[in-house]
Amino acid sequence: MKEELQQKIDLKTKPQGALGKLEQLALQIGTVQNTLSPVLTKPAIVVFAGDHGIAKSGVSAYPQEVTYQMVLNFLNEGAAINVFCKQHQINLLIADTGVNFSFKPHEKLIRAKVEKGTRNFLEEPAMNIHELENCLTQSEKIVNDLHAGGCNIIGFGEMGIGNTSAATMIMSNLCGLPIESCVGRGTALNDEQFAHKISILKQCELRHGRSKDPVAVLQTYGGFEIAHITGAMLAAYENNMLIMVDGFIATAAYLAALMINPLLQNNAIFCHLSDESGHRQLLKYLGVEPILSLNMRLGEGTGCAVAYPIIQSAVAFLNEMASFENAGVSTKAS
Amino acid sequence: MKEELQQKIDLKTKPQGALGKLEQLALQIGTVQNTLSPVLTKPAIVVFAGDHGIAKSGVSAYPQEVTYQMVLNFLNEGAAINVFCKQHQINLLIADTGVNFSFKPHEKLIRAKVEKGTRNFLEEPAMNIHELENCLTQSEKIVNDLHAGGCNIIGFGEMGIGNTSAATMIMSNLCGLPIESCVGRGTALNDEQFAHKISILKQCELRHGRSKDPVAVLQTYGGFEIAHITGAMLAAYENNMLIMVDGFIATAAYLAALMINPLLQNNAIFCHLSDESGHRQLLKYLGVEPILSLNMRLGEGTGCAVAYPIIQSAVAFLNEMASFENAGVSTKAS
Repeated sequence: MKEELQQKIDLKTKPQGALGKLEQLALQIGTVQNTLSPVLTKPAIVVFAGDHGIAKSGVSAYPQEVTYQMVLNFLNEGAAINVFCKQHQINLLIADTGVNFSFKPHEKLIRAKVEKGTRNFLEEPAMNIHELENCLTQSEKIVNDLHAGGCNIIGFGEMGIGNTSAATMIMSNLCGLPIESCVGRGTALNDEQFAHKISILKQCELRHGRSKDPVAVLQTYGGFEIAHITGAMLAAYENNMLIMVDGFIATAAYLAALMINPLLQNNAIFCHLSDESGHRQLLKYLGVEPILSLNMRLGEGTGCAVAYPIIQSAVAFLNEMASFENAGVSTKAS
Repeated sequence: MKEELQQKIDLKTKPQGALGKLEQLALQIGTVQNTLSPVLTKPAIVVFAGDHGIAKSGVSAYPQEVTYQMVLNFLNEGAAINVFCKQHQINLLIADTGVNFSFKPHEKLIRAKVEKGTRNFLEEPAMNIHELENCLTQSEKIVNDLHAGGCNIIGFGEMGIGNTSAATMIMSNLCGLPIESCVGRGTALNDEQFAHKISILKQCELRHGRSKDPVAVLQTYGGFEIAHITGAMLAAYENNMLIMVDGFIATAAYLAALMINPLLQNNAIFCHLSDESGHRQLLKYLGVEPILSLNMRLGEGTGCAVAYPIIQSAVAFLNEMASFENAGVSTKAS
């Protein structure tokens, strides 16, 4: 199928390769769907929210309350991810995986709470193995339900004050890179706060040692929302869905998932390069090129939502453009 | 207005600056429209097509017939630009500024033919001053008509076998850079063809000398479609429209327009970095950052069309996102 797809792409009325990244996306999407005429159906983004014990150690510029406040903002359709999903008719769901707050029922809120926040990994592992399994099981069900409803392309966002710290530790461990190469300023820490964050994370490294086992690392550092994304990506792959990978935290979750199932890479579309400084290094480690580089660093799955029309463009040109023969256009002179 | 816009952006429920380039675009668009609530109305892309005498000197991998064949492809809705404009409900018009072919009337075809192709600038100037004025006058009318119909954002594409050679000479002259820094492989020349293109363009430089006068340079090297884009951009600015700047050739036309009216930069949105090698240098010379970098090198205005939803996202977040206060979300701890 890959060869036939490449031939279809090359016979479109344009110089070979002239649509650049769009051609790579068309080839990937057609290959995943095993068809010359792929379609994107019922696109969805799930934002997983969870709180982090490490937030108590002053690693974020924002107080922990912002996690639940932003979940309410999502449900009231006031956040950036709401705006971009509405723009592109992407079905947006919010999953409470472990926010330190009791939400009232809401049609867009999935109740998947494990605990009211992870434990502080400066002192002890963020979660136990049962809590981790709980995350993986619940996220699998969320994705299976969406797939059963007709969704074949899905992105995952996150909200959780303190979660760049968890993602930094996951990346540092699983890539075997020093913390300094992975850590960033999250929600815009100043120099002093940033130095404090690095110092805290180094203490965590001393306490827990290093590991390359994705399950152990997820358990040690969390968070619930990151583990959910890992599980959700694995489930999306099992359903042969296209997986939109967002920024730093989502890519850390992807890294853990990839180590569990290396075939995941076939279905993964890297949506953007985040301005969070570890992300460039992480994408480089993975050897992948994202679609967008807009200096965004918001999370919530916003990189997926903003990149989605570009993915649609890739499918559209493959299905709708004329070939040289059909259009009566001459090919290269020589 | 700029300060009020920045304040509105900063009070949205996100860390300051976390939407990166989208925030810059929102600020620019609000400033141009002098409002805190900008709107994009009746977006349009005009593809200007024209033939080039220099094509006879073997500077392209494709025969000159491809220009008119692609115009027919545009009118039959089979080209990439058709697909992307349809995707985003962008009004697409095709202008024949000097194609070596007689087209039948068509509702989407604007008749603005100056001549059946420019003269070969290896031997003589591509056009005379009357022909250049004709280009500028006709393109002004095209843009004024679209503006009168309610369009406030417009992009310009081009089609013309040989036109990367003209754009190279424009860039080389107006930037004061050697041809080698400006020239690229166009529609994918091989090494031998590329060496021939460079050799031809150096002969042209010897024949005509160097100039920094945009009018003289446009007249010497053409083409009709490039001069049309220059005129169209100047007219779009006069109507206070947002101007989407496409790839290498459109940016060369922009450079000439900018030297005529430096205020143009306020309204210009650079849509993508083309894979045509001179474009990176040209954007650097202009000191601007494009929205997309997808290794596209197709022309036709495709960079504008593919980037358009990102511009829409910028306007959407500014208008639709909640503020910290409205959403009841805490701001930074310190």
